[in-house]
Amino acid sequence: PVSGGEKVQSKLSAASIGPDWTKVRCPCCVSDRVEPLVLVKLGEKVGPETKRWIIRVIGASQKDGGAALLAHPGEDASGDIIVVSAPRCTLLRATEELGLCKIYRNGDMEAFSYSDRDNFKDSGTMFLTLAECQYIVKYELDGLRAQRDLRIPGLPDSCTLHNRDNIWQKLRSFGVIVDTFPLHNPDKLKNLSEAWYSGNQLAQPLDSVNEYFGSSVAFYFSFLDFYTWSLLPPALLGLTITYFSDIEGDSEPPVSGHMLQAVFSMLWSTVVMELWKRRSSSLSYRWGTLHLAERFAEPRPGFHGDLGVNPVTGRVEPLFPEWQRDLRMALVSVPVVGLFLGLVVLGMMCFYWAEAQVQHLHNDWDSLLSQTLLYMPSVLHIVYTNMLATVYKTVAQSLTEYENHREESAFQNHLTAKVLVFTFFNYFAVLFHIAFFKQDVPLLRKRLASLLIVTQLINQVTEVVIPFLVDRFISAPHRTQSEDDPQEEKFRNQGTLPTFPGLFAEYIELLVQFGYLSLFSCVFPLTAVLLLLNNLTEIRSDAYKICKLFRKPFSPPAANMGVWQIAFEVLSFVSVVSNCWLLLLSPRLQDMFQEGGMSSTNVLLLAVLVEHVLILIKVIMAVLIPDEPDWIRKKREHIEYSSMQALRQKKSTRINRRTQKYRSCRQLYRHL
Amino acid sequence: PVSGGEKVQSKLSAASIGPDWTKVRCPCCVSDRVEPLVLVKLGEKVGPETKRWIIRVIGASQKDGGAALLAHPGEDASGDIIVVSAPRCTLLRATEELGLCKIYRNGDMEAFSYSDRDNFKDSGTMFLTLAECQYIVKYELDGLRAQRDLRIPGLPDSCTLHNRDNIWQKLRSFGVIVDTFPLHNPDKLKNLSEAWYSGNQLAQPLDSVNEYFGSSVAFYFSFLDFYTWSLLPPALLGLTITYFSDIEGDSEPPVSGHMLQAVFSMLWSTVVMELWKRRSSSLSYRWGTLHLAERFAEPRPGFHGDLGVNPVTGRVEPLFPEWQRDLRMALVSVPVVGLFLGLVVLGMMCFYWAEAQVQHLHNDWDSLLSQTLLYMPSVLHIVYTNMLATVYKTVAQSLTEYENHREESAFQNHLTAKVLVFTFFNYFAVLFHIAFFKQDVPLLRKRLASLLIVTQLINQVTEVVIPFLVDRFISAPHRTQSEDDPQEEKFRNQGTLPTFPGLFAEYIELLVQFGYLSLFSCVFPLTAVLLLLNNLTEIRSDAYKICKLFRKPFSPPAANMGVWQIAFEVLSFVSVVSNCWLLLLSPRLQDMFQEGGMSSTNVLLLAVLVEHVLILIKVIMAVLIPDEPDWIRKKREHIEYSSMQALRQKKSTRINRRTQKYRSCRQLYRHL
Repeated sequence: PVSGGEKVQSKLSAASIGPDWTKVRCPCCVSDRVEPLVLVKLGEKVGPETKRWIIRVIGASQKDGGAALLAHPGEDASGDIIVVSAPRCTLLRATEELGLCKIYRNGDMEAFSYSDRDNFKDSGTMFLTLAECQYIVKYELDGLRAQRDLRIPGLPDSCTLHNRDNIWQKLRSFGVIVDTFPLHNPDKLKNLSEAWYSGNQLAQPLDSVNEYFGSSVAFYFSFLDFYTWSLLPPALLGLTITYFSDIEGDSEPPVSGHMLQAVFSMLWSTVVMELWKRRSSSLSYRWGTLHLAERFAEPRPGFHGDLGVNPVTGRVEPLFPEWQRDLRMALVSVPVVGLFLGLVVLGMMCFYWAEAQVQHLHNDWDSLLSQTLLYMPSVLHIVYTNMLATVYKTVAQSLTEYENHREESAFQNHLTAKVLVFTFFNYFAVLFHIAFFKQDVPLLRKRLASLLIVTQLINQVTEVVIPFLVDRFISAPHRTQSEDDPQEEKFRNQGTLPTFPGLFAEYIELLVQFGYLSLFSCVFPLTAVLLLLNNLTEIRSDAYKICKLFRKPFSPPAANMGVWQIAFEVLSFVSVVSNCWLLLLSPRLQDMFQEGGMSSTNVLLLAVLVEHVLILIKVIMAVLIPDEPDWIRKKREHIEYSSMQALRQKKSTRINRRTQKYRSCRQLYRHL
Repeated sequence: PVSGGEKVQSKLSAASIGPDWTKVRCPCCVSDRVEPLVLVKLGEKVGPETKRWIIRVIGASQKDGGAALLAHPGEDASGDIIVVSAPRCTLLRATEELGLCKIYRNGDMEAFSYSDRDNFKDSGTMFLTLAECQYIVKYELDGLRAQRDLRIPGLPDSCTLHNRDNIWQKLRSFGVIVDTFPLHNPDKLKNLSEAWYSGNQLAQPLDSVNEYFGSSVAFYFSFLDFYTWSLLPPALLGLTITYFSDIEGDSEPPVSGHMLQAVFSMLWSTVVMELWKRRSSSLSYRWGTLHLAERFAEPRPGFHGDLGVNPVTGRVEPLFPEWQRDLRMALVSVPVVGLFLGLVVLGMMCFYWAEAQVQHLHNDWDSLLSQTLLYMPSVLHIVYTNMLATVYKTVAQSLTEYENHREESAFQNHLTAKVLVFTFFNYFAVLFHIAFFKQDVPLLRKRLASLLIVTQLINQVTEVVIPFLVDRFISAPHRTQSEDDPQEEKFRNQGTLPTFPGLFAEYIELLVQFGYLSLFSCVFPLTAVLLLLNNLTEIRSDAYKICKLFRKPFSPPAANMGVWQIAFEVLSFVSVVSNCWLLLLSPRLQDMFQEGGMSSTNVLLLAVLVEHVLILIKVIMAVLIPDEPDWIRKKREHIEYSSMQALRQKKSTRINRRTQKYRSCRQLYRHL
């Protein structure tokens, strides 16, 4: 058991699950307490000989084509679950392969090295986090490849494995394996939830979140936290502006609140994103993910290509030329995504056209039928949008599969980017239409306020209240569990929870919020206040949700927010364009300029000038604020320097070693 | 002699200079042929004991605070020159320290490692280029530091060295050393000039330029070459447009040539800069400068700070906190530069005001006096501008000194950036004034045409013809040299040539050209043609200049064009704004829109929309075109991977080595 909480583990595993774990060969890994990490759920019709074969593969050493993990058949040797754990050596080797950093004996974080493991602090216990252990188990299982053509015992002849087939993928497609998910650790979960959302605490226990749920989840909550607190300045400004404009009534101050709010929010968004980058890199250092070596590890299971020698690592693996991927992206993905965006616009145009038609009809007829017809365009539009979104998600998935990315993170980033562009477009198309074509600021203000209040309420309800009710009143009665239940039953119960849907929905919610705030906030100064209030509850509800309402997710180690970082930054630049435009439309400013005797062309020129200057300021700020704190830069450069030195020494080590051997022997001779 | 051309060298050095070189301790460096690399010119009043002391310091090992170089007192032991060369070991050690890459035995470029030198190809001869050798000599001399307080023999007591003083800097300030410059190699120079500019060859011998003049010079000529050829498409387009618009006369095609030219040049500039980045990185790989380790080497001589342990390399050296440098830049440099830019604008405004006044006066009086007065504003403005530029150069130099950069390249980049912004502003202020305030396209066209033709002619004359005439008719008669002259005399003659003024003037010429082309080309379609013609001669004249008219410059290894790269890219984005604006002003387009019944506000809106779309396209293109070719990326990643592996192994090497020693001894025992 590399992870902590050993006392609890001993009870859980040794007592309840029993000592039936597969044997470990490595002497340093033998232990009488094994922590169950991952549950593999088999199909109903899987025979015991197939199960035995799977357990053998899981337990076999990597040399023999196995995963070098520990497997436990559960209470009943013919039951439909396999509990998987990992011996220490496998975990540590994978830690090196993934490029995770750990605390070295001098107190710095350094890339973990298996052969140097004794010099890392606490390498015995409390070394890897629970999330890391579980991810490593998944990584090893996903990496299983058949070493030759073979038949799986107990399966029909059609289900054979060919050389280099991915075993886990194949078993899934044969229906042998239904599910693979990490197990909750009830005691740790209890501690975490108490520190996270049960009390009135303001700060989140981010390190514990990282330890329990892994760094990609922890990055989401860190960003949510950071972003929520950074809403304070615009919220205060918004409150002040609202207060003073109420007091003054129609006295028209020389600098309107709108303008102040707009310029502030434009500069604020850049500062926030730059500061977040710095925070993100120090978090990544703290969580040991600053030097992830995904590029140098095995490619992701779905990656295919002609076998060849990887020029970077020198290993034999599938290769796929970069230019071919670029070609596929440029010639297939981009046009398809463009097509779907076009369909969104088309849908919106049809909606407006139909609405106008129906209104016209209603005015002519004014009957009950025509009144019902009034709702038709909205209903049709909603149905159309939802269908489009569903189709698009599948299409985006297959497009990204087709692009054939080597790394899991690249795959996820490209998939996210595709869905993100579409979703964002879907959300904002109507607002942009109102702002840029209808040029109707009051309508925009009304729409924005209702969106902010209604969508957030709906979100909170659908995200938390409904799953909570379902869980409490529909699912829970079926799985009332007592302390005396066999451990296996408890594990199986976790499988009845729905799968965690991933962080996409959470991130897009933040992005849309950020969009409301930075794109249109100057028309509704209270946006930041509403968002601040929403986010304070959002932190708690998201935490509750991930802890209680879903299965524990696998979470790959992550060094930053990936593509979301870019999305937020792009939005912050688009906001300059939109804010300048909205200011131009604002009636008070138009009055002011007309009083000042400026022609509309000159006002427009002024707005364009202001926009360019603001963009210039934002670019300069983004360049000038360093992306990582000074101390991280130093640590990073130190690591680069040491690797450079090491590379030089390594080349000559062989020669030196020979000399040294010769010398030591000579000394010995002399001694004799 | 690490460098090639050994037969020639033997004659030059052993025969002419004689065997009086300081002795080398290292057995592998002993050679009877030493190539003279650098000439140190001493002050007239320097006594022989001081000269002997300097020669001793140059020759002493680095452990004893020397430079570990070879020194030769010249024919006359009390003469005022010292010829410096370098033994093989010093050169190779410095090669490692600078992080230069060389061809490894497997054919790849790898960072040179002194302890692994035998595995590099041709490490005996033809290994370092002449420019590298000479730069290394300078690097070692510049790095000389006093190891304790000491008096220099033959100098007054006021001239003492304190512990850790930079010896070379101090000797310069005492007037002991007047000059340090690299020596030409006449035979190599002859070969180079024949291949470069004597014939009608179209391609430049870039590798030989790199070998003889070093990579920073070679990068300039590579860029000049690349840029010149990339002028072909806009030149052809410009010719076509001019031809057709002449034929059609006033028939007004639906898409005007202006528009086509503008959109083309906007996209063209991004493509060219992206492709140049790729070319630049492959050149940098070829010339072994892809992994320069300047950050990890000794700080530059002028760098000062409190002594401390560098957290990156672990060496004791002066440290200066990053934030303090940032503070100095933000609070001192930026305002001062801004002030000078303000002075330029002020000067321009005064000029216009004075011109109007004088014109007014002339209209009133119409006398000879008033006619003379008409020229006064121009004369005063030119005097003012020149004085300002001279003052600014000194100010920029001290500002950059004050910023206290650790690396020479950072220093140069910051200095260049400062001068560049000012010079550029100076050149373009008038054009921008005409384009944006006077909004006078015909005047702009006239001005641009005259600038292009006149400035280029003037440039060619001042840059080449005058130095050539001076060299041929004024300087040359004083240094007529025959084959029989003593070698020393030939060396001394090289000192009479003027110092090479650096590449700033050459680069700024290209940048200003590029500015004319990308900012204003749509008003004068023949710009690219004129520039192409100019550059074809520019290549030759620049090559002639650097080979014949100046002393050979020291040239630090460079991995790219540094800050010039950024300047060109920024310009290419500014060009979108300026071109869209000029199109808006173009009379033909205005007519077209008025015929189409668009209000001026709507036309402006359209222009802004087009501008934003074009900027978006340029950003996307810049992101999508990778900055380095695929094969370089793979090589780079391979190096990163190997260093990561090496770092891991290094940590455990000590343990392994101990085991191995033990094992080999045991085997020996058994054997006995």
